[in-house]
Amino acid sequence: MANLVSPLAPAQFPTLPEIAGVRLSAAATGIRYKNRPDVLVALLDKGTTVAGCLTTSKSPSAPVDWCVANLKAGKARALVVNAGNANAFTGKAGVATVKAVANASAKTFGCKVAEVFQASTGVIGEPLNPAPIVNALADLNKNASATEWDMAARAIMTTDTFPKAATVKVKFGNQLITINGIAKGSGMVAPDMATMLVFIFTDATIPARILQKLLSQAVSPSFNCITVDGDTSTSDTVLLFATGKSEALKDLKSADDARLKPFAKALSALCLDLAHQVVKDGEGAEKFVEIKITGAESAEAAKKIGMTIANSPLVKTAIAGEDANWGRIVMAIGKSGEKAIRDKLRIKIGGILVAAKGMKDATYKEADIMPHMKGRDIKIEADIGVGKGTATVWTCDLTHRYIDINGSYRS
Amino acid sequence: MANLVSPLAPAQFPTLPEIAGVRLSAAATGIRYKNRPDVLVALLDKGTTVAGCLTTSKSPSAPVDWCVANLKAGKARALVVNAGNANAFTGKAGVATVKAVANASAKTFGCKVAEVFQASTGVIGEPLNPAPIVNALADLNKNASATEWDMAARAIMTTDTFPKAATVKVKFGNQLITINGIAKGSGMVAPDMATMLVFIFTDATIPARILQKLLSQAVSPSFNCITVDGDTSTSDTVLLFATGKSEALKDLKSADDARLKPFAKALSALCLDLAHQVVKDGEGAEKFVEIKITGAESAEAAKKIGMTIANSPLVKTAIAGEDANWGRIVMAIGKSGEKAIRDKLRIKIGGILVAAKGMKDATYKEADIMPHMKGRDIKIEADIGVGKGTATVWTCDLTHRYIDINGSYRS
Repeated sequence: MANLVSPLAPAQFPTLPEIAGVRLSAAATGIRYKNRPDVLVALLDKGTTVAGCLTTSKSPSAPVDWCVANLKAGKARALVVNAGNANAFTGKAGVATVKAVANASAKTFGCKVAEVFQASTGVIGEPLNPAPIVNALADLNKNASATEWDMAARAIMTTDTFPKAATVKVKFGNQLITINGIAKGSGMVAPDMATMLVFIFTDATIPARILQKLLSQAVSPSFNCITVDGDTSTSDTVLLFATGKSEALKDLKSADDARLKPFAKALSALCLDLAHQVVKDGEGAEKFVEIKITGAESAEAAKKIGMTIANSPLVKTAIAGEDANWGRIVMAIGKSGEKAIRDKLRIKIGGILVAAKGMKDATYKEADIMPHMKGRDIKIEADIGVGKGTATVWTCDLTHRYIDINGSYRS
Repeated sequence: MANLVSPLAPAQFPTLPEIAGVRLSAAATGIRYKNRPDVLVALLDKGTTVAGCLTTSKSPSAPVDWCVANLKAGKARALVVNAGNANAFTGKAGVATVKAVANASAKTFGCKVAEVFQASTGVIGEPLNPAPIVNALADLNKNASATEWDMAARAIMTTDTFPKAATVKVKFGNQLITINGIAKGSGMVAPDMATMLVFIFTDATIPARILQKLLSQAVSPSFNCITVDGDTSTSDTVLLFATGKSEALKDLKSADDARLKPFAKALSALCLDLAHQVVKDGEGAEKFVEIKITGAESAEAAKKIGMTIANSPLVKTAIAGEDANWGRIVMAIGKSGEKAIRDKLRIKIGGILVAAKGMKDATYKEADIMPHMKGRDIKIEADIGVGKGTATVWTCDLTHRYIDINGSYRS
């Protein structure tokens, strides 16, 4: 089945500037795909710190276990990623593969084994032979360049229909910090070929402990607030590398340092941009849906209500059918289990009030919303009316193409 | 869109015997459908006790609120059900409709207002005019008969493609107790036209308090263990009426009375039968899927894992595609949040071991499972390997037809 480009894809791939201390390289090793790069290596200069947020799945992949173990030391010199095989549910053989790649990488790149971070995405349950990756390392090392961001984003794609990247710059007086990120994911978190992987690089100088705090804060309202199908991958990985080449943030002592605010803001914006791109490449997506919850009992309650709406197959199919079916939104709020008072709910679609005081709003006419429902960007707002908790989550619609992709993926 | 009969429908409608103290009647009132019965009345003799399990949705329909309030007294003389309009999210007007129907029913049938139970299923958010129902009550009263079970099951259908009923008899010496049940639901718990409604009638003599305990026990492993799309309706209702015409169980003092065991067993079997029929009429269903979890930390954990598998769009689309994609089952177990140890999981499909010890089983060949995947009945077994908790849940596959039904339902 051809990977038609998502109708929600950005018009073009952004131009990513170089980041001092980061060199990229990709190779076509034929792990699963033919004639396309499927292994990415990012080489990181000495002094690079690293932070990560990895899947909460209870059956994580071997590379996820590897990253979690090495994040404690917080130092990175290389990232090795392959597409086509997730090395998940592969038992002891999977662990051996990760070790073999780490050992060979450490030797080739001249670093410690624990400084090699890894991620794998693709089919689950198939043994991943380390040989094609190991054999490619020498060339990957030799060919590494600071400019190959486009190729890097393409090398980690699986069912993705477009490469995903974003870049931001933060000014500190006359100094600049750059943050680049690349991502893959389609079906937020589908395990087969659609695990979400995100790699972010910056030249900022930030100790690993503080970097971790910043990353966790940025991931929570971005990658943790998107869903395509509610399925959580065995391999989801977000890694943030800071090479320390910029002088701007030197000598940070604490995550509360006021100098970090613009950096944290820029990092959050970049994460949100990449998260939206993942949703926009959701399997079969035709529409990008923003769901804003206000007035919930707490922020957690608001997020749970938002995610319940975002994961409801009935809401998602209605949006695919361009049907302003607010009754299904009421249903989803009701089933979230969070406190809600039917007669205080207020629901808007495309900015138009459709339901309030426990019933359809008297002024609402379905025809008024039709132009909005026919667009690419759908906005749903629900005020729960019981508190001050807010959250915004994003998803896509559920179309025939999702079933085509996932019902016939291996046939 | 034509309601093609589900390929999983039973070969024929079962013959339901009369139940002393129950008379049925249906009328075509044109609430939404034309030329078909859409209002059901069940008239219950004096002395009938009632128990109920209703939706846990935080935005329940007006008739659900009504039933919950009247269950406390535990006495019933009439059940009035309409199809085509759910009377959900209809504000004060919805409450007024329920009261109007109850008042008129009490007058027509000669009982107390609080003895009239009600349920509504159909579109959400549209006001339900009580007049067509109220105007039909006199004829419904006059025409009531003990034999019209088939018509009763048809009168409550919405998107259902076949009427659902089951009957069991329980012997006590030379006495017999009969239990009849009818159900509607398609898309377990879709709010628009697919709310699950179940009405069960028996001639047993059982106090309301004990009846409630028996019903709750029977509902937990049956209706609460099925899912079509994971969506919870504003209107889900299971009511059990006991007319007290049989002498078999007279003078029950406690739910622990040993005489109740065969009754409880029969009630559970009937609930499971009806629950399976609801899944088999799941919107777009082509396959009936049983998921059996063993070795979980607790029974609750086992059910959560089972339901996470059953609600995973990736698992459901794989089954629709006849793809023995066990990697998605691993993924779903991992995302359930329950304790699981990757290297102890054992997964069988159609009785064939596919994965164990953290990887694909060495003896497993996909071709061996293909005949099973091509059948109508799919069996998935997962042993979690961490405890003794077990649960079995049921679902159906996710097909293009689900999207057809739900994406274009109102257009």
